[in-house]
Amino acid sequence: MLEWVEKEKKGMNVNNDSIEGQAGDNEKVNGLSSLYTERAKGMHASVIREICKLIARPEVRSMAGGWPDPQTFPAAKIAEIAAELFTEKPESVLQYGTSEGYEFLREELARFVKRRDGIDVAVDEIVLTHGSTQGIELAARILLEPGDVAFVGLPTYFGGSETCAGYGAELVGVPLDDYGMIPEALGERLEEAVSAGKRPKLVYVIPDYQNPTGATMPVERRRAMVELANRYNIAIIEDNPYRDLCFTGKPLPPIKAFDTEGRVVYLRSFSKIFCPGFRLAMAIGETDMVRKMVIARQFEDCCVNSFGQYLLYEFVKRGHIDEQIEINARFYKEKRDHLLALLDEHFPDTVRWNRPEGGFFVFVHMGEGFDSEEFLHEAVDQNVAFVAGPPFFIDDSGRDTFRLSFAQLGMSEMEEAVAVLGRLLKEKTK
Amino acid sequence: MLEWVEKEKKGMNVNNDSIEGQAGDNEKVNGLSSLYTERAKGMHASVIREICKLIARPEVRSMAGGWPDPQTFPAAKIAEIAAELFTEKPESVLQYGTSEGYEFLREELARFVKRRDGIDVAVDEIVLTHGSTQGIELAARILLEPGDVAFVGLPTYFGGSETCAGYGAELVGVPLDDYGMIPEALGERLEEAVSAGKRPKLVYVIPDYQNPTGATMPVERRRAMVELANRYNIAIIEDNPYRDLCFTGKPLPPIKAFDTEGRVVYLRSFSKIFCPGFRLAMAIGETDMVRKMVIARQFEDCCVNSFGQYLLYEFVKRGHIDEQIEINARFYKEKRDHLLALLDEHFPDTVRWNRPEGGFFVFVHMGEGFDSEEFLHEAVDQNVAFVAGPPFFIDDSGRDTFRLSFAQLGMSEMEEAVAVLGRLLKEKTK
Repeated sequence: MLEWVEKEKKGMNVNNDSIEGQAGDNEKVNGLSSLYTERAKGMHASVIREICKLIARPEVRSMAGGWPDPQTFPAAKIAEIAAELFTEKPESVLQYGTSEGYEFLREELARFVKRRDGIDVAVDEIVLTHGSTQGIELAARILLEPGDVAFVGLPTYFGGSETCAGYGAELVGVPLDDYGMIPEALGERLEEAVSAGKRPKLVYVIPDYQNPTGATMPVERRRAMVELANRYNIAIIEDNPYRDLCFTGKPLPPIKAFDTEGRVVYLRSFSKIFCPGFRLAMAIGETDMVRKMVIARQFEDCCVNSFGQYLLYEFVKRGHIDEQIEINARFYKEKRDHLLALLDEHFPDTVRWNRPEGGFFVFVHMGEGFDSEEFLHEAVDQNVAFVAGPPFFIDDSGRDTFRLSFAQLGMSEMEEAVAVLGRLLKEKTK
Repeated sequence: MLEWVEKEKKGMNVNNDSIEGQAGDNEKVNGLSSLYTERAKGMHASVIREICKLIARPEVRSMAGGWPDPQTFPAAKIAEIAAELFTEKPESVLQYGTSEGYEFLREELARFVKRRDGIDVAVDEIVLTHGSTQGIELAARILLEPGDVAFVGLPTYFGGSETCAGYGAELVGVPLDDYGMIPEALGERLEEAVSAGKRPKLVYVIPDYQNPTGATMPVERRRAMVELANRYNIAIIEDNPYRDLCFTGKPLPPIKAFDTEGRVVYLRSFSKIFCPGFRLAMAIGETDMVRKMVIARQFEDCCVNSFGQYLLYEFVKRGHIDEQIEINARFYKEKRDHLLALLDEHFPDTVRWNRPEGGFFVFVHMGEGFDSEEFLHEAVDQNVAFVAGPPFFIDDSGRDTFRLSFAQLGMSEMEEAVAVLGRLLKEKTK
């Protein structure tokens, strides 16, 4: 749902309702629209809200959102810890917290990161954020001035690119292949930007089970990203919400593990391995950058909710998080296998898709001439939803692609949904 | 504590540690400091953190923060509702939410606002925010461009003024008297700004039990504020976290009640009447403005934590909130009475302070030549803390003032603290 609402910003080819309340700058009207900043005026109200409402109907099988399956939520353990917290320390868990996040939690999370990612992180290099969304936002706020250049994947999660654009950055797309963002392509674009007298500031990248492509970046590429960042004096925003949902073996080290000059801001979310309901994530970065993020967040939301922080602390300290990661990885692997089998069965032979080694997403390529947004409307008419490709491409390409999430639907619902999509595709490609 | 960390931005006359990591724009250094925006470079790291650490020591009696007394937290009721929620709908309360906030919650809150403030609010005129801090932030983001003029009280809560400054607004101070912001003074400054070819955009105002002065604005002034906003085509950000903590009779109608053209963004927090631990607040505004805030927040934090929203819904629906408001108002009235009696007893006769009719704060005026920041250091040495005046004044005046909160300390601790302050003041004014 969230992503659907976000998608509105990309403005699909549907008439939008941003006309209402518009007025010239010096004209008095009811409401505040004549006072909006230029950027706010450009924010379009929900053109997609009708589809959004359709998806909210219980009969719709949605493969759209990046929402986890509620079956994975460790509700019993959360309930147990919550009962203890409300009884034993209500004065703390119901009170304001510190802007960095509680020190004891950051200490516990430093151990978690050491254990899972193999990197040493000091407590002062961690700030709790209200979802990784806030991590992206804070980093962009500190690094981006109008006209700065931000590099993003083609395609990439639109939350990252839109946030950078929101601070006035010029977005430059960097192509991806089956192994994620291509460092050579990034290098060329950096060189072009510098030659053109522009100021490159950061690259936003999702190295593990990328959103939307599902691609995993090999170690050499991770290292190459850091080398480019060092050479061109830019930051890397490493958004990595899915890395623990690794279906075979162990996840590769994060890009942060190769960071030699403190250039990587590494965002690690608990939404997919714990639950999204408390908006818990952390940003890991060099001490001074983290300190800036802490100060900036004072005027954004003060602090992450204390109850969630205490809950996460207990959940991690008691070792539940590591068990939960195992459970979730197995769970989503089964779902991926199921989806891949269904695609083999139902989709036309001409269609291509990837086999993600983790995460939530399969990315489908239809081939020249296909219109995924038109297809989406047809699918929604048949009570099936997904995300069409264009919002993931800052150059509005990718019309022949769409993203399927295997995370949220149950097995039989997924079967029904894929059967519908397969039938529609076969009719279209006949 | 929060405010102490914020206070660092005002830069007390202590050497600060922002030197570290500074470098010219084109110079490569470890870390990202050469990439910071001009504004981020101006964010000072904690000069006050040592005092902050002192305050964190259990022996310090702090009258500094605007934190509620944990005794008021309805922990048993929260625990009961939480247990039900985790059992009955874990799939919802642990999942992502919508960016506006749940519709059923906004419906319930519309009834709450009707009941308590006497105003009719539609569901689409409400957005849940992560504390009123986020409400200020979102409004500022949508309304303020560099060079726009924002009017704030002299004094005012620095969260409001700093957030506006963070968007590049020019801040103009408007004097307060015992009845809050003076509309005539605002009118003069609006006229001056317009005459100087500037673009006034908003006034940030706290009409009830103002922070830091404790002053309450009479009805005529509220109406006059709206008239000025209409005449000069500006917005009013009405920050009203304390209004339900009314010690005698009923609170006056909010400024929003007099809003004829949809110009007031009314921020209503649950931190002081429920608890701060879930960061729950709402912003009420004209539909289009609220829609912009919803879109903007998509890229800031996506949504307020779902668990907190469900909890608040049940707490309000079951009528607990109204009981809790009664309890809290009585509780803080006793504390206010206690503080006022202690001030009478311990403070020198030459000192002036107000008698707030609600909220958390008493504001002390010492008179010409007094240095409240020096006094703060002396008090902290004696294990007592408060907030010195200057951070509340954008023109750095108010050196002879300080703010005492009666909210957080227990009765006997408060007595000890005021006795210490009284002794120090008598020594100083001898």
